[in-house]
Amino acid sequence: MDIIVLNPGATEKELRHIVKKLESRGLKANISKGTERTIIGVIGDTSKITEEEENAIRVMHGVEDVMRILKPYKLASRDFKAKDTAINVGGQIIGGKKIQVIAGPCAVENKTILMNIAEKVKDAGASFIRGGAFKPRTSPYSFQGLGEEGLKYLADVRKKWGLPVVTELMDPRDMEVIAKYADIIQIGARNMQNFRLLLEAGTSKKPILLKRGLSATIKEWLMAAEYIMSKGNHNVILCERGIRTFETATRNTLDLSAVPVLKKLTHLPIVVDPSHGVGRWDLVAPMAKAAVAAGADGLMIEVHTNPEEALSDGEQSLRPGDFKKLMKELKPIAAAVGREI
Amino acid sequence: MDIIVLNPGATEKELRHIVKKLESRGLKANISKGTERTIIGVIGDTSKITEEEENAIRVMHGVEDVMRILKPYKLASRDFKAKDTAINVGGQIIGGKKIQVIAGPCAVENKTILMNIAEKVKDAGASFIRGGAFKPRTSPYSFQGLGEEGLKYLADVRKKWGLPVVTELMDPRDMEVIAKYADIIQIGARNMQNFRLLLEAGTSKKPILLKRGLSATIKEWLMAAEYIMSKGNHNVILCERGIRTFETATRNTLDLSAVPVLKKLTHLPIVVDPSHGVGRWDLVAPMAKAAVAAGADGLMIEVHTNPEEALSDGEQSLRPGDFKKLMKELKPIAAAVGREI
Amino acid sequence: MDIIVLNPGATEKELRHIVKKLESRGLKANISKGTERTIIGVIGDTSKITEEEENAIRVMHGVEDVMRILKPYKLASRDFKAKDTAINVGGQIIGGKKIQVIAGPCAVENKTILMNIAEKVKDAGASFIRGGAFKPRTSPYSFQGLGEEGLKYLADVRKKWGLPVVTELMDPRDMEVIAKYADIIQIGARNMQNFRLLLEAGTSKKPILLKRGLSATIKEWLMAAEYIMSKGNHNVILCERGIRTFETATRNTLDLSAVPVLKKLTHLPIVVDPSHGVGRWDLVAPMAKAAVAAGADGLMIEVHTNPEEALSDGEQSLRPGDFKKLMKELKPIAAAVGREI
Amino acid sequence: MDIIVLNPGATEKELRHIVKKLESRGLKANISKGTERTIIGVIGDTSKITEEEENAIRVMHGVEDVMRILKPYKLASRDFKAKDTAINVGGQIIGGKKIQVIAGPCAVENKTILMNIAEKVKDAGASFIRGGAFKPRTSPYSFQGLGEEGLKYLADVRKKWGLPVVTELMDPRDMEVIAKYADIIQIGARNMQNFRLLLEAGTSKKPILLKRGLSATIKEWLMAAEYIMSKGNHNVILCERGIRTFETATRNTLDLSAVPVLKKLTHLPIVVDPSHGVGRWDLVAPMAKAAVAAGADGLMIEVHTNPEEALSDGEQSLRPGDFKKLMKELKPIAAAVGREI
Repeated sequence: MDIIVLNPGATEKELRHIVKKLESRGLKANISKGTERTIIGVIGDTSKITEEEENAIRVMHGVEDVMRILKPYKLASRDFKAKDTAINVGGQIIGGKKIQVIAGPCAVENKTILMNIAEKVKDAGASFIRGGAFKPRTSPYSFQGLGEEGLKYLADVRKKWGLPVVTELMDPRDMEVIAKYADIIQIGARNMQNFRLLLEAGTSKKPILLKRGLSATIKEWLMAAEYIMSKGNHNVILCERGIRTFETATRNTLDLSAVPVLKKLTHLPIVVDPSHGVGRWDLVAPMAKAAVAAGADGLMIEVHTNPEEALSDGEQSLRPGDFKKLMKELKPIAAAVGREI
Repeated sequence: MDIIVLNPGATEKELRHIVKKLESRGLKANISKGTERTIIGVIGDTSKITEEEENAIRVMHGVEDVMRILKPYKLASRDFKAKDTAINVGGQIIGGKKIQVIAGPCAVENKTILMNIAEKVKDAGASFIRGGAFKPRTSPYSFQGLGEEGLKYLADVRKKWGLPVVTELMDPRDMEVIAKYADIIQIGARNMQNFRLLLEAGTSKKPILLKRGLSATIKEWLMAAEYIMSKGNHNVILCERGIRTFETATRNTLDLSAVPVLKKLTHLPIVVDPSHGVGRWDLVAPMAKAAVAAGADGLMIEVHTNPEEALSDGEQSLRPGDFKKLMKELKPIAAAVGREI
Repeated sequence: MDIIVLNPGATEKELRHIVKKLESRGLKANISKGTERTIIGVIGDTSKITEEEENAIRVMHGVEDVMRILKPYKLASRDFKAKDTAINVGGQIIGGKKIQVIAGPCAVENKTILMNIAEKVKDAGASFIRGGAFKPRTSPYSFQGLGEEGLKYLADVRKKWGLPVVTELMDPRDMEVIAKYADIIQIGARNMQNFRLLLEAGTSKKPILLKRGLSATIKEWLMAAEYIMSKGNHNVILCERGIRTFETATRNTLDLSAVPVLKKLTHLPIVVDPSHGVGRWDLVAPMAKAAVAAGADGLMIEVHTNPEEALSDGEQSLRPGDFKKLMKELKPIAAAVGREI
Repeated sequence: MDIIVLNPGATEKELRHIVKKLESRGLKANISKGTERTIIGVIGDTSKITEEEENAIRVMHGVEDVMRILKPYKLASRDFKAKDTAINVGGQIIGGKKIQVIAGPCAVENKTILMNIAEKVKDAGASFIRGGAFKPRTSPYSFQGLGEEGLKYLADVRKKWGLPVVTELMDPRDMEVIAKYADIIQIGARNMQNFRLLLEAGTSKKPILLKRGLSATIKEWLMAAEYIMSKGNHNVILCERGIRTFETATRNTLDLSAVPVLKKLTHLPIVVDPSHGVGRWDLVAPMAKAAVAAGADGLMIEVHTNPEEALSDGEQSLRPGDFKKLMKELKPIAAAVGREI
């Protein structure tokens, strides 16, 4: 909180009361009496003023509004660290010149299918395998994932094809088992403000891929990253995956402007997931291209050898042939923005 | 999935392939060939068709769209149980003729303040005390709650004032300690799709107050209730607390139409939280009145003896005097809709 | 524009350049140098700073953000006029103690049906007849209204039943004919920012019922009222009719919190249209009750003797019997909030 | 309307009544009796069933829901015309291989500035000049445009620099004067459902650039195009310019997925306006690149020689140097998607 706007009818006594409160916190007040409003500029280390204190001031007599100038996140901000964060995962750098592609099925279904998909995405140029062993599903009657068995298959893929593993953590109690197999731990969109899970992720040594919540503002998303970082884990990768809007032609609305906005606000790398963003496989290729053109550091794409039989999200999965074609078409776009893929 | 719409150019072969797939699941296909589209009506127990199978059909050759007729939730639906669910909590019925009022501070701060608030809300006519011991906060630097100490103070309130306790569960690992002290366990808006937490809540013997997620549709909300109920706990209370929209004049947009919509779709009781819904104490009274007029079974209202010093959400808390006045004003409105308060 | 926040790296030269620009507009700058940001408080008659000038300052070197303290609307604000505006239409006061009910069909279809509906709503206690002669329809192939013929039927209703007429203006070229028959001229939601139409309405002697746009913030809505008032017509009635959100269970999301918010910001009367707000007749009664409880000055309700045969919006029209029942049930709620109906 | 879903409790009599109603419209009913619901497939030319009739059926006894299979727009759909529409404007093809760039100031301010900007954008490779002579402004106190004088300056640009003119029509009464000077007539976002203006545009011989409304679904947008086309003007260019969401980091949320969605649904060309889409000049370049990568047929970009002094939207205007750099950077991206610029 840096600026306090007083009501037109605020009294001198109310003003003095507010100034006194600020001074009791070691802050100074710079008072501007305008023709229609009096404004107090708060001087000092306002970053120590908590949200609670801000809200408390908001309800003081004579106060019309409180405006905060400083961003509520610190470790995640460019002010704190100007240089881009580059995260090395098994020799692959996320946040460097190369745009990294994470590909694979939505859920791990069985070993044969997973191995088969892994071979294809590796061949097409992906650098990471993705696949859920613990699946957040909107229905309790849907397939919930294979659990540790699925994680083992992912580890088999890493061993055989050299692809580091990205997989989701849904429950703090699963941290140990996930950390045993994963190279990057994913926090899903529906858990972006599951603060206990974020704190747990903050104690891990593994990089965290933090998906944007369906209705999370960019500020809230960075605050979620701050939760993880505040516990010591600074390797956070942000993943834009579409926000909820009134439009129903697509499953979500992929907010690609989040990429350049984040590039200004934070040093953390940004990955785009067009598969969840649009929810239809036939729109994935144009949106993947657009994401690269907008400056994304990576892509996360669902690929399945047989979408018709997929146990999860088949309608948004690319077939290996379409994925290979896309990877080829992305090359000149990456080059056009000074990157490689 | 009950209706499959084919592409204008779908072939006979594709049609036969789809019909065969349905028959392999024990379903029958009723084919309507219209002038512009062919439609397949799926006959049989389609409730056993999972979301995965629906999506798999959606990507089959020749398919333009799949429309589901049946609701994806069962236990939560009026079809399953026509009669209103009434939940008895320490002698107070939620979902009966009496509109129940849950009041108290956002967070439990210390014993003195809590006891003081409890006395006032009891005196004004509230039947339940609310207060968070574990607090979900958007900033890791904000007050996170007193933990078990806070729960003990809530138990002290119950003992002294006879008010059953409503408090939030944020982490499955806290279930034991929360269940020890709470009469109703709250699942917060940001955890509405924390599916593991829902499953944990489903195994509890305590009623669950399930807040609507910020961007949750009513259907998704009922699916979250279904998660809890699918584990055997049928005592779910739904709590409307505002959804996220483009409007910034209020913290959220309180969706009161959800009350009559839910009354048609489900047998579960519905409580409205105008404090979070609008986020400004000066709008709480009119919206509480509107909630009662719209048919809510209960209200959840933040009350604090000193909002200026509250450690959380002070700007939306009523002072005891305003709360008492509101309780009095609600009486004739409750009577007008055939209820009491 | 009242506060200018500088970049952390803003130079003294940039600061002087900004101050000079302000002084060239006859304003003074009060500079607060904080530890992390420098803030300029702008002193003087900032209401004369246009949006253009505000935006121009926003892109000056050294500027991080510009915050406007004063509301952009004047004539519509409580600051300008503290007392509630009460509008007398044919002896009926909108904005007084009595909650006024405007009822009738969505569109005027023919004289017999209209007369029949008018008799019923009059009998049930409505004070105004509504009905569209010029209809905004999302499809060019839908019924577009009877035009002047429809207006004549409305005038017949006024003559026979003494109900003043509310009807919509869609095109500035229709102003003359509409003004000839209407007592209150409606501007529809889709035309809320049809600025030429607003200016035209501002030159009329007739009160204007201004519906909220589907995605209009309350601030934008008041700016639209300001457009009308700036031309001399101060008799503007605001009508909340639902906003567009992600929820699809209702046609729109009726934002009842807009009622108490507006009561603080403006002196203009506020009417609620639950029929369009929810789009389903079976939700109209609870939402009408909630609107009265929330403090609305009036209701606008669609009534049709035969919704099955209505040429427009039949699915949201009450039958006369249900409307009569609702009118009766509203009485004690109106009384509970110190009003009558 | 093609499918009617009956209530679980619908009677035989109700079913017969519905079937009779359909038959009275020359349609046939194919009845599927499932285990939980009965469904009626409507066979015949259902495109002649109006929205009114659909809604009327929705409120018939025994009906639970009505689902429309066919799209409500015809002339705008790919079903009606499979081949891309290419529009020739003064020798420049919109909707062909070349991605067309429309550039210029938000508003025409005076001749010198406009001529200067025109020279720069022409030099950088733009093919069209844009500039508003009649400006829709949210405040009645803002600059409203130069009117016909501004149009004349635009014509001067065309004459001197050979750039066809794109300018906005706000009022049907201005059609004659706008058509006299414009090569492409723009309908702004706030007028997308100003149906009278759309009909007026439909009678023009000039191509219409139809901006998407702030909260318009893609379906509603195509219905607006249908309004224009239904009057005989088939030269409609769609312009995505951002939708309103909860995110406030950008002025709007640019929905680039609309581009590939529209490519499937319609034959009309699609232009993207990143300037309004994000509202900040520093995000325009990455979003322009993303738009080209996503498959847009054109770009509309605000350019101003002196954004600090612009009378409108200075904060989102590129300086000529930045625009020239962008045009150069777009070339390889256009090439990568098989286009040129």
